Amino acid sequence: MPRQVDHEARRRLIAEAVCRLADESGLEGVTLRDVADRAEVSMGAVQRCFRTKEEMLAFTLGYVGERIDARVRARLVRSPAQSAASALGHAAAEVALLREEHRAEARVWLAFVAQAAVSAPLAETLRANYAALHEVFARLLAEAAEGGAPTGPLGPQHEARTLLALADGLTTHVLIGHLTAREAQDVLHAHLARLWGNDA
Amino acid sequence: MPRQVDHEARRRLIAEAVCRLADESGLEGVTLRDVADRAEVSMGAVQRCFRTKEEMLAFTLGYVGERIDARVRARLVRSPAQSAASALGHAAAEVALLREEHRAEARVWLAFVAQAAVSAPLAETLRANYAALHEVFARLLAEAAEGGAPTGPLGPQHEARTLLALADGLTTHVLIGHLTAREAQDVLHAHLARLWGNDA
Repeated sequence: MPRQVDHEARRRLIAEAVCRLADESGLEGVTLRDVADRAEVSMGAVQRCFRTKEEMLAFTLGYVGERIDARVRARLVRSPAQSAASALGHAAAEVALLREEHRAEARVWLAFVAQAAVSAPLAETLRANYAALHEVFARLLAEAAEGGAPTGPLGPQHEARTLLALADGLTTHVLIGHLTAREAQDVLHAHLARLWGNDA
Repeated sequence: MPRQVDHEARRRLIAEAVCRLADESGLEGVTLRDVADRAEVSMGAVQRCFRTKEEMLAFTLGYVGERIDARVRARLVRSPAQSAASALGHAAAEVALLREEHRAEARVWLAFVAQAAVSAPLAETLRANYAALHEVFARLLAEAAEGGAPTGPLGPQHEARTLLALADGLTTHVLIGHLTAREAQDVLHAHLARLWGNDA
């Protein structure tokens, strides 16, 4: 079904254009015309892919979320022999988007989060992404506990919530320049070390 | 100098209008005309207060930041006899904006954070706000340590960074509906309890 494949590939191409525009100037004032120009497709092509701007944004958010999620999972698969504790550290670092090459992605993510606070369809897509990340964190925390690591009396669900919120807050603070990426990484590492009882 | 007072009062009135618009639909697409209509002033009055939209947004962000900062400090002054540990708990809860009546303020804050990631003047205003909150947290943590509370080997500056990032991440997760306010409060309380060595 080549037509169907074309359609999906075109949607991803358009999503990439939305990301570049969001990275440059946020989602404020982005029009379908801007997106068509950036993706080098016609307005008609954009409109055949997405009925509304909201639908285009929701697709783009899902696309970015999947990319982050895929990267987190790839890190886990690449080193199957690593301990759950070490895997969790890598996963948290990926989610926090602290590496320089992910700074653009972090800006795009933040723009979507802000829009999601006032748009129900975007909030729904975002919740699905967060739920998936929460599950990865909670599973690794549970595995670490089975392996003998002390995850504390509050349990993996609670610790996963804490870790995800901390990672998100750190991303934001690096983006606006309140913290350096190094300071944020230190906070993340120290939090995980404390979780495993290595508070030294 | 009544003219000067009028000018400042008018700027605050306009900032209130920006907040209400940001709460309803984010900062995307907000025009000076929208703001003038909402504040029930003329376009000329808005333009005499602010030369550009960017200047108006930076003023509004500073205004919201001062309000949060003032609330945090008021909580501290109201109960001077409380321990530093307890004061920190109250301060963190104020910063996290988890109470229902502060949900609108949290949405406004988040909209500004997203814009600040792509606007240097907004980022500068935001960093000043975060620096002020960081100082309050670090001072309370240092006082708690002097009072004998174990703030850990990483010191008040490190713990203040962690707490501020966690509070911010939790605010975001409640806004988009990933967590309930109650779940976020539990995470915040447990983090503080762990900080004081009451990890039970």
